[in-house]
Amino acid sequence: MLTVSTVTEPLQALYAPVREDLRLVERIFDEEIAGDLPFVDELCETVRSYRGKMLRPGLLLLAARACGEMTAAHPTLAAVVELVHMATLVHDDVLDEANERRRQPTVNNIAGNEAAVLLGDYLISHAFHLCSSLESQYASRKIGATTNRVCEGELLQNHYRGRLDLSEAQYFEVISRKTAALTATACELGAHFAGASDGAVDAMRGYGLSAGIAFQIVDDVLDVVGDQATVGKTLGRDAGLGKLTLPTIHCLSVADADTAERLRGAVKDNGPGSAEVIRDCLSRTGSVDHALSVAREYVVGATLQLDTLPAGDAKASLTALAEFIIGRRF
Amino acid sequence: MLTVSTVTEPLQALYAPVREDLRLVERIFDEEIAGDLPFVDELCETVRSYRGKMLRPGLLLLAARACGEMTAAHPTLAAVVELVHMATLVHDDVLDEANERRRQPTVNNIAGNEAAVLLGDYLISHAFHLCSSLESQYASRKIGATTNRVCEGELLQNHYRGRLDLSEAQYFEVISRKTAALTATACELGAHFAGASDGAVDAMRGYGLSAGIAFQIVDDVLDVVGDQATVGKTLGRDAGLGKLTLPTIHCLSVADADTAERLRGAVKDNGPGSAEVIRDCLSRTGSVDHALSVAREYVVGATLQLDTLPAGDAKASLTALAEFIIGRRF
Repeated sequence: MLTVSTVTEPLQALYAPVREDLRLVERIFDEEIAGDLPFVDELCETVRSYRGKMLRPGLLLLAARACGEMTAAHPTLAAVVELVHMATLVHDDVLDEANERRRQPTVNNIAGNEAAVLLGDYLISHAFHLCSSLESQYASRKIGATTNRVCEGELLQNHYRGRLDLSEAQYFEVISRKTAALTATACELGAHFAGASDGAVDAMRGYGLSAGIAFQIVDDVLDVVGDQATVGKTLGRDAGLGKLTLPTIHCLSVADADTAERLRGAVKDNGPGSAEVIRDCLSRTGSVDHALSVAREYVVGATLQLDTLPAGDAKASLTALAEFIIGRRF
Repeated sequence: MLTVSTVTEPLQALYAPVREDLRLVERIFDEEIAGDLPFVDELCETVRSYRGKMLRPGLLLLAARACGEMTAAHPTLAAVVELVHMATLVHDDVLDEANERRRQPTVNNIAGNEAAVLLGDYLISHAFHLCSSLESQYASRKIGATTNRVCEGELLQNHYRGRLDLSEAQYFEVISRKTAALTATACELGAHFAGASDGAVDAMRGYGLSAGIAFQIVDDVLDVVGDQATVGKTLGRDAGLGKLTLPTIHCLSVADADTAERLRGAVKDNGPGSAEVIRDCLSRTGSVDHALSVAREYVVGATLQLDTLPAGDAKASLTALAEFIIGRRF
């Protein structure tokens, strides 16, 4: 079986309906960021190795196939959303002081924070540049509005750092903007450019929004209880940076005073034994299960949006992809 | 006399032919970055206070008036180039660890490096978002290609840090990309959207390129010999960060072995007395005068490009603006 070079194995099967298109996305992505400065190309090589899930391009292309006709614009748009995503990863790793991603040293680890900030800028610039190659401004406007929202989410998350009284509502405001805005736009653009009806475009946007929220909840769960070797990136950064997420917010809201105090202490302290203490507190209150059950509700909500789509392999993949989000261990 | 609120006084007269348009640019700029998060609006207030010279919007609007008709697109485009410039300032201040700009604390100083990285992202995102509001993709393509180049220039400059054998050619490669690419595009877009002939668009691009190079040389000179109170931003950062610029490169290439060794030592050492030693070395070799004479050549080159334009107050302002670049003390 021909595979897309960088996509993680369990996803290969889900992406089968768009395999050829995804290969084209990788080529467009690589061509867009190639330049005349060898050391920049080397840094870009690191970024290429982050393309493990290709979730956003996958969503965009599957939405297109599920709703209508794939066009020449689709692989370009898919490369645009992946470039935006890569830019956020590179800057996130600077902000999170993360050393490892996809079992590789991060850009900040290899080349320093300065180069990583600038490389993130380079990627976002190329995302917009690539998007402007399309005939109409439609996608540029959607992408611009989306990246505005993603930046707001990131700023908000940073603003809330150290806030041990963060509410679930505030948490959902952060992840809706920083993560789900882009997955929603990916699905919406895929459907729109495939000539889908307004109703189908809205449904796909709803699917992408719910899937994105579920994805982020699971990401945050893995940061607390994941196996670093399996996940392949630096874990435990959220608590280490004073960032509460759904499991810790839930625990603080239901735990007895003693457990809540221990959890707050471990988050504030951020010492060598903190991760252990946090996991123990969360297990006492069933907070990981709670977070996963909330994520499952979003997955169910996402899948419901697919109801009106005609049956087919792309729809089946979108359904399975929502399930993958909740079941993943990486 | 009605003035544009944020523009530094000596420039007010030069901008007289586009005063009303510049006021509109400020409004578009402010509207574009206004959001629903109060703490982000507060950070944006700091960024607004950086808008001292409004050089890029000024160039774009004057190019339009000098070459043809001002259109509704022009103030929008002028706000776009200023947003791009502001984003680079915010990230530059993080990279340069600068504490002061326009006599105000920098964003990184007020809110930390993390918030400053994210605010720079927010500004660049809004620049593209605003640009996508125009009817055609023409400007989005030009702006995307330009920001690609600006990022390359910044990456290159970072790559060359600590390289005490930097050549003039390498220096010019950096500043052409990081600074002159945007001033060139500002002039080009101003002329193009005003309906100028291809020849006039090329001439304005040439003017912007030369003016941008001259501007950056003078900026680098001020970093070494400027008066911090007058310039209003943290100075001496270039040598402090191991960044050679035209005066230091010239000095190293013509100085006797002893002076060159002292200069290299001061750049490497970056101690409390380093700035004094650097200034002394540069004065021995006349390197500040050399750099300013090179800047003057670029100003002359810029002005020559204006020859074919019809006489008028906008052309007179562009001529005077080139002179301002070389004479400025801030």
